[in-house]
Amino acid sequence: MKTTAVIMAGGRGERFWPKSRVERPKQFLSLTSDGRTMIQKTVDRLESLVQPEDIFVVTNESYAGLVKEQLAQIPGENILLEPAARNTAPCIGLAAAVIRKKYGDAIMMVLPSDHLIKFNQMFVDTLKTAISAAEKGSGLVTIGITPTYPETGYGYIHFGDGSGQPGVYNVRRFVEKPNIELAKEYYNSGEYLWNSGMFVWKASSIVTNLKKHLPDMTEGMQRIYDAAGTESFREIVAEEFPKFRSESIDFGVMEKASEVYTIPGNFGWDDVGSWLALERINRTNEYGNMIQGDVICINTSNTIVCGGKKLIATVGVENLVVVDTDDALLICAKDSTQDVKKVIENLKICNRNELV
Amino acid sequence: MKTTAVIMAGGRGERFWPKSRVERPKQFLSLTSDGRTMIQKTVDRLESLVQPEDIFVVTNESYAGLVKEQLAQIPGENILLEPAARNTAPCIGLAAAVIRKKYGDAIMMVLPSDHLIKFNQMFVDTLKTAISAAEKGSGLVTIGITPTYPETGYGYIHFGDGSGQPGVYNVRRFVEKPNIELAKEYYNSGEYLWNSGMFVWKASSIVTNLKKHLPDMTEGMQRIYDAAGTESFREIVAEEFPKFRSESIDFGVMEKASEVYTIPGNFGWDDVGSWLALERINRTNEYGNMIQGDVICINTSNTIVCGGKKLIATVGVENLVVVDTDDALLICAKDSTQDVKKVIENLKICNRNELV
Repeated sequence: MKTTAVIMAGGRGERFWPKSRVERPKQFLSLTSDGRTMIQKTVDRLESLVQPEDIFVVTNESYAGLVKEQLAQIPGENILLEPAARNTAPCIGLAAAVIRKKYGDAIMMVLPSDHLIKFNQMFVDTLKTAISAAEKGSGLVTIGITPTYPETGYGYIHFGDGSGQPGVYNVRRFVEKPNIELAKEYYNSGEYLWNSGMFVWKASSIVTNLKKHLPDMTEGMQRIYDAAGTESFREIVAEEFPKFRSESIDFGVMEKASEVYTIPGNFGWDDVGSWLALERINRTNEYGNMIQGDVICINTSNTIVCGGKKLIATVGVENLVVVDTDDALLICAKDSTQDVKKVIENLKICNRNELV
Repeated sequence: MKTTAVIMAGGRGERFWPKSRVERPKQFLSLTSDGRTMIQKTVDRLESLVQPEDIFVVTNESYAGLVKEQLAQIPGENILLEPAARNTAPCIGLAAAVIRKKYGDAIMMVLPSDHLIKFNQMFVDTLKTAISAAEKGSGLVTIGITPTYPETGYGYIHFGDGSGQPGVYNVRRFVEKPNIELAKEYYNSGEYLWNSGMFVWKASSIVTNLKKHLPDMTEGMQRIYDAAGTESFREIVAEEFPKFRSESIDFGVMEKASEVYTIPGNFGWDDVGSWLALERINRTNEYGNMIQGDVICINTSNTIVCGGKKLIATVGVENLVVVDTDDALLICAKDSTQDVKKVIENLKICNRNELV
């Protein structure tokens, strides 16, 4: 069966402000020393699995230019533009409609565009196992991540018995982000994986499940399917897509579906959820500092500095995040990175949209 | 007797980096909201006491342009250029030579160019008392500051009995910067004042004392005196001045002279010794933050932010000093402002003199 990839690239993530902006969110930034952006690295990783013409990118209309610029190898018609942000379920439904129309049926690997993976070959091998599991029937396969500490920022997958295929397990349930006590319980139990938001299934399997669990999407999706590959496609999407309820694929489908499998992956996954990720994904020096740019550190420890064009000197500080850009500078305590969004709210209230 | 003012403006203070640079040290910066520079405010304060043509500025050759630009009212010949940095004793000797040659004798008010004073009228009144005391004989008068806490960064003046003139006291001795225990002793005793580095005397009185206590300067100073007001003045200064030993007036003369008086001043004096001064001399908000420029503070307290051209957002931080300029940014813990000089040392070692 044909294998396709669906890259979800509509996120407007605010957690990398001031480097990320509404105009250029995280997936279009390079946060690693190789200069490749997150979405470029996402596509690079799939090289041995799919042809560029079988990669689909679902994104916001305003990011069409960035996608074309950064992923020139992907055919323009594979860039699917959402006229409104409706979370992952409608996004995946849209891609499934287009893929079914084009190929009849095909394997869809659904992947976020803004995560990092350290061990590419292990990742590819995990996806191969997932493809093979998805091909066998009509199940939904999700890639789980072996947890390395009790993280409270991720959802978890409670997995059960083996499915028969080695490395593939039945999913007992999906659970929301836990508090720290629960996270410790999950972590210690050995029965939980992190929910990575990466899925593999047949287009037909997810469509069956979308119809069953989100029936109010069915009619609109049928119209989109009918229009796919025709001149009226954009028009119909513009008409139908905004009518969909905003719904995540996890909550809308995965938590309710009956035939769900998970494949535990252990390939150095990082969701790069905040500036703190930079010290995980880049090298820190002997003082625990992660430094990019022209920086002089005096008595500085455990600090992240992303310099811009000017010299930055830090003196006697610790546990800070400093990010300098041409028009905005962030100085944030490491334990307050979640509050960066308050800066953005403040800017919006003051109509300073050029800085958001 | 004619009253003159001698403004000492040769300092290369590094403690306001990155706003101050070797090319433009603190006295030529504005650190207050009125936009006047420190040296301009120094001269402004003297308006009711001396005419501009009786104000002399002693500075480094490289600052001649800045002095002329910022103090256009002062005659060019009153700007005395030191060909080398030799601390305050040779600086004052140079001014005394020029003033004696021009006026025979005159009162000299010797004033630093980089301090701030809150209560101008009280300051002027204190200087008037000092002038009157200096005119009476050949004594050296120093302005002491009533201490408000046990500061360890200043020298102290141990004062004794009244001199006969109200508000004028005999000096028992000058003492160097104390440790905190001694500073507390001085502060609690009620017998000590802060040494402000402001002096009032007759030119003849200080020349007599320079001859007595720094005799190796005598010959050079005589040559400078002889050349003052002639075409060979600059040449002779260039020849003689660099030969002087580097010596402070406090250590070289005041600590040894016999007829020394002090006048306690209580006029809101601040030596603006580091970035921390900004929160004393400017208004802080309800969170204890001193903010200049375009700044958004989220959960930020007791922090000093001197913005430049871009937005600065601080999140979850406290007790920081943030100073942004076009080509350098400082982020410094408040208790580490003395270490800013290490940044400058580092820049010098790396030959990055454009940033020093």
